[in-house]
Amino acid sequence: MIHYSIDKTANASLENELNEKIDTKTKPLGALGLLEKTALQIGLIQQTSSPKLSKPTIVVFAGDHGIAKKGEVNPFSQEVTSQMVYNFLNGGAAINVFSKTHDIALKVVDSGVNHHFDLPGIIDAKIDFGTKNYEEEAAMSTDQCTAALKKGGDIVTQIHREGCNSIGFGEMGIGNTSSASLLMSYFTGIPIDECIGAGTGLNAEGISKKKETLAAAYQKHHPQSPLEALATFGGFEIVMLCGAILKAAELKMSILIDGFIVSASLLAAHAINKNCLDYCLFAHTSNEKGHEKILSYLEATPLLNLGLRLGEGTGAALCFPIVQSAVNFLNDMASFKDAGVSDKS
Amino acid sequence: MIHYSIDKTANASLENELNEKIDTKTKPLGALGLLEKTALQIGLIQQTSSPKLSKPTIVVFAGDHGIAKKGEVNPFSQEVTSQMVYNFLNGGAAINVFSKTHDIALKVVDSGVNHHFDLPGIIDAKIDFGTKNYEEEAAMSTDQCTAALKKGGDIVTQIHREGCNSIGFGEMGIGNTSSASLLMSYFTGIPIDECIGAGTGLNAEGISKKKETLAAAYQKHHPQSPLEALATFGGFEIVMLCGAILKAAELKMSILIDGFIVSASLLAAHAINKNCLDYCLFAHTSNEKGHEKILSYLEATPLLNLGLRLGEGTGAALCFPIVQSAVNFLNDMASFKDAGVSDKS
Repeated sequence: MIHYSIDKTANASLENELNEKIDTKTKPLGALGLLEKTALQIGLIQQTSSPKLSKPTIVVFAGDHGIAKKGEVNPFSQEVTSQMVYNFLNGGAAINVFSKTHDIALKVVDSGVNHHFDLPGIIDAKIDFGTKNYEEEAAMSTDQCTAALKKGGDIVTQIHREGCNSIGFGEMGIGNTSSASLLMSYFTGIPIDECIGAGTGLNAEGISKKKETLAAAYQKHHPQSPLEALATFGGFEIVMLCGAILKAAELKMSILIDGFIVSASLLAAHAINKNCLDYCLFAHTSNEKGHEKILSYLEATPLLNLGLRLGEGTGAALCFPIVQSAVNFLNDMASFKDAGVSDKS
Repeated sequence: MIHYSIDKTANASLENELNEKIDTKTKPLGALGLLEKTALQIGLIQQTSSPKLSKPTIVVFAGDHGIAKKGEVNPFSQEVTSQMVYNFLNGGAAINVFSKTHDIALKVVDSGVNHHFDLPGIIDAKIDFGTKNYEEEAAMSTDQCTAALKKGGDIVTQIHREGCNSIGFGEMGIGNTSSASLLMSYFTGIPIDECIGAGTGLNAEGISKKKETLAAAYQKHHPQSPLEALATFGGFEIVMLCGAILKAAELKMSILIDGFIVSASLLAAHAINKNCLDYCLFAHTSNEKGHEKILSYLEATPLLNLGLRLGEGTGAALCFPIVQSAVNFLNDMASFKDAGVSDKS
């Protein structure tokens, strides 16, 4: 197992300094709500009262899932994963539009898509051509799982070296809400039934079938550690996300957590090293059923509630302007004293 | 009374065209949640399936309130209104930071501050040096009220002429949550007690005193029309906001409604011509107590829930990147057909 050395961000004197700075801005006390909490958190992450976001980047990890070949848990066919990767590379997906709109760099990673890409612009971190079906056997070997964790971390290390200190994560993988539901149940102890939703758009009958399929898969396996759970339920993109989150926390980056899948990866990361939570900002509450319960479990307050359920990091991208606004008010707003405004009597 | 000619935006064939365009984008059906509703609304406002936001602008109207001189309803002193206007002009307020961050033009209007500004950069639309105290008499005459409505509209007309089709409104005025509460009660029929909150930061005792003061003021007057209600309870910035909203709707602009005060102005505008609602996007739910009830009354779904209670148009500014994202996905995302992605089987 890879060891992660992640510092807590707590620093009482800096926290006082940040709160003093926030509270003397020309506004009623607390009037910027969650933006104030966000500014405080980023100050603590960067260990400064004047944090800056540099080279914001979203990384989308894509992978295929053995179970998706049967079409029991997913209304879209498995080939849509590779088709969507081409869409990312051609600039046509939602995440392309939002990244461009908000001036965020976008990286696309082949974590294990069932397709050979021979294209510039994609980061090749392929572990295999899709996972195995956990209805029958573990999605991947523990060696593959360790390799995926490491590759996720290496990709973040490289992006950090290029000057990025603010990263968001997204994913693409037909069938991956199923993996995420299994991992959610494993790490939170919430019954598997309550972790399952419509994914890309199952109807009630489809959800019922998905619940039956996943309950059986869940009962078949008895993983004994976070690593084993990740290897058992997959997928490659989810494991890579877990490694990426842990490495980004180790590197003291601000991490924008997207929706259901990324949050399930975070549950695994949290089980491996709970300090990573200090570095996570929660972009939004997804409409995918289990997400709200993951957020509650992690005691997280998301910034947006737009009814999204798309993945790709779209929630993280849409949230970035809010996070930037939080940092900017902390740095650029005048204080009562500077502006000659009388404070509350 | 000024007459406003505001068209409904309903257009069944365009609505079908927009929904078809939204539903064939490379994403699961409905997966962009409120962004899809926003894109549809802006398409209908602009009567095109390819809307654009041009020269987005936020206008902050500032005015003083007779009642604020006594300090019974407001923890900050009246002079803070003019001090904050100087802060806006010097670029130090939250709305300056957020407008700059999101590339939104910012205009500041003196609607009736109790101070003489002799400065470039402010739009002079002063009706008077603050309103009268509605504990004793109407806040303004009906002539002043009509003049304020007209000036609000004229300012919007000028901004529209300069090429803006997307406008947000904000306000500054010590004491103006009190005016807004009185108007809210008048237009919604909700008892005045339930329309009153902490404003810029009253404690429980202060809120109790504010309730007593405003209940007496409410009972003293019996306005017989929207115009009389506006004149009775003021303030100049609130009336100007009402005129600005009605004119922006007449000009078929997208209108970003900020928090409690702007929403109270919208209640008056809605009572004058209910069609204006078709043009309104609701930026956020304020933490000021009455706001959620106004939103329910108008059957509005706000885009953000960040616990803000600052005014100045800050919620509108923070929401603008979301609105821009909605328009951009509608125009720039690939369809399943364009991208060669297989649709749901």
